[in-house]
Amino acid sequence: MSALINGAATDQLFLSDRAIHYGDGLFETIAIRAGRLEFWQRHMRRLNRGCERLGITPNSELLLSEARHLINTEDGVLKIIISRGEGGRGYRPPSMEESRPTRILACYSRPGYPAENSEQGIALRYCTTPTSLNPALAGMKHLNRLEQVLARAEWSDPAIAEGLMFDRDGHVIEGTMSNLFFVCDGTLHTPDLSNSGVAGIIREVILELATDMNIPVQCRYYACQDIERADELFVTNSVIGLWPVRQIQARQVGAHGWGIGAVTQQLLTALDGKRQQKGEYESV
Amino acid sequence: MSALINGAATDQLFLSDRAIHYGDGLFETIAIRAGRLEFWQRHMRRLNRGCERLGITPNSELLLSEARHLINTEDGVLKIIISRGEGGRGYRPPSMEESRPTRILACYSRPGYPAENSEQGIALRYCTTPTSLNPALAGMKHLNRLEQVLARAEWSDPAIAEGLMFDRDGHVIEGTMSNLFFVCDGTLHTPDLSNSGVAGIIREVILELATDMNIPVQCRYYACQDIERADELFVTNSVIGLWPVRQIQARQVGAHGWGIGAVTQQLLTALDGKRQQKGEYESV
Repeated sequence: MSALINGAATDQLFLSDRAIHYGDGLFETIAIRAGRLEFWQRHMRRLNRGCERLGITPNSELLLSEARHLINTEDGVLKIIISRGEGGRGYRPPSMEESRPTRILACYSRPGYPAENSEQGIALRYCTTPTSLNPALAGMKHLNRLEQVLARAEWSDPAIAEGLMFDRDGHVIEGTMSNLFFVCDGTLHTPDLSNSGVAGIIREVILELATDMNIPVQCRYYACQDIERADELFVTNSVIGLWPVRQIQARQVGAHGWGIGAVTQQLLTALDGKRQQKGEYESV
Repeated sequence: MSALINGAATDQLFLSDRAIHYGDGLFETIAIRAGRLEFWQRHMRRLNRGCERLGITPNSELLLSEARHLINTEDGVLKIIISRGEGGRGYRPPSMEESRPTRILACYSRPGYPAENSEQGIALRYCTTPTSLNPALAGMKHLNRLEQVLARAEWSDPAIAEGLMFDRDGHVIEGTMSNLFFVCDGTLHTPDLSNSGVAGIIREVILELATDMNIPVQCRYYACQDIERADELFVTNSVIGLWPVRQIQARQVGAHGWGIGAVTQQLLTALDGKRQQKGEYESV
């Protein structure tokens, strides 16, 4: 990992930063692929929307030049953290005039996921750690991520690539690090994230692509029976892109056996095209 | 602020620490009063219970000697943070064998609250930011505190000392930095914290004292109407101790006018006694 904090190369953060004490900030995880920062503008829009909800004024116009200065690889992961900055003890944030948000950029190598995950699909499990129900925080990629940490700690079997999380009311919400989609009778479904979960960038792209391709889309609350009846199922995030799901717990997905379903395959191809599209990336 | 990280004086934390990325840890806020670390053993028990729930193994036997080494005041606040320690990108925590938790101790001066808060009571408001509903995280003093930050940012009027937070189901849960108690027909009530909120140390002491004093106690879910009907109301935390509440929004508490109610006064006196009791503190 190499990193910049407010433009300066360092590997340490001041202890008075509110990211440490309260998780008072947001982050973005951006794929660097073939020298391109994928979906850069979308990541910046989400970051700015999140900052607005938290009352943080980020210096986001500096981020692209700092990212280019930092990144020394054609393929990897750029993580951006914006925190509210330094502060004294106590929850009360400094006013927007007083506060000096902290920009952290860190560059990582790409995680070594097996190629089969994309090509043949993954096995999913159900997690018992619930997602937090809180409309004031839902959808944001904020730094309060203990629920994901606890859910991901539930299993160590490398044959299981992802775990699904439910809210306390039993609605399926998302994977520990991904958003969930499923196809039922030709309609694409994805959970409503207005009360919990993280609204991912690839989720946004997939929803746009489905609309462009005239695939009917529904976004509401689902129980595990709904997804167990699905014909196709997949998870998405910025680093993995799209992984088809071939198995939930011990159950095989879809009535037609293994392999990638037709709608999933269409969206996967369209997602690959979108990645290459002008305006959807910035060069490193 | 002066601080120790893993025993060494520093004001910076390694950027790879999971406290920064995920709020993956816990904290304690301990009052230093007249050279005593109040309720030290209780804080340590809560910290250890929280660490057990998060799967963190703290080096808690080092904390008291490090606190004594750090603290250079008779009156102030000691904050202890235990994080899961350093790690790579990704939610999955290192195994308990691999992980090296980080101990952060920081010493602050006592916040300058007006003496009237204790002596005459405070004014409370209702916050619109809800507490998060999540039984896997409820009760713990973990580092995911964005809900408190957003709630505390809702007002700046210095005449209002605290704000009450409700869960998404409309149950009153706690103050932004305190626990809530109220008295109705001689019974002491406090909200159930099994789905959200932080179970405070002074809350624990007050519940014990009430039982010792044969005050009937109930702990369940309440709506705002329940607290608006209360005869007495107060909030507690380790730094403030106990603040009576004289006003909620614009409404005066209790039918008998201003001043501290009889049960509140009894508990305040008993709390003061408990503070002095052998075994309930450690000398600095």
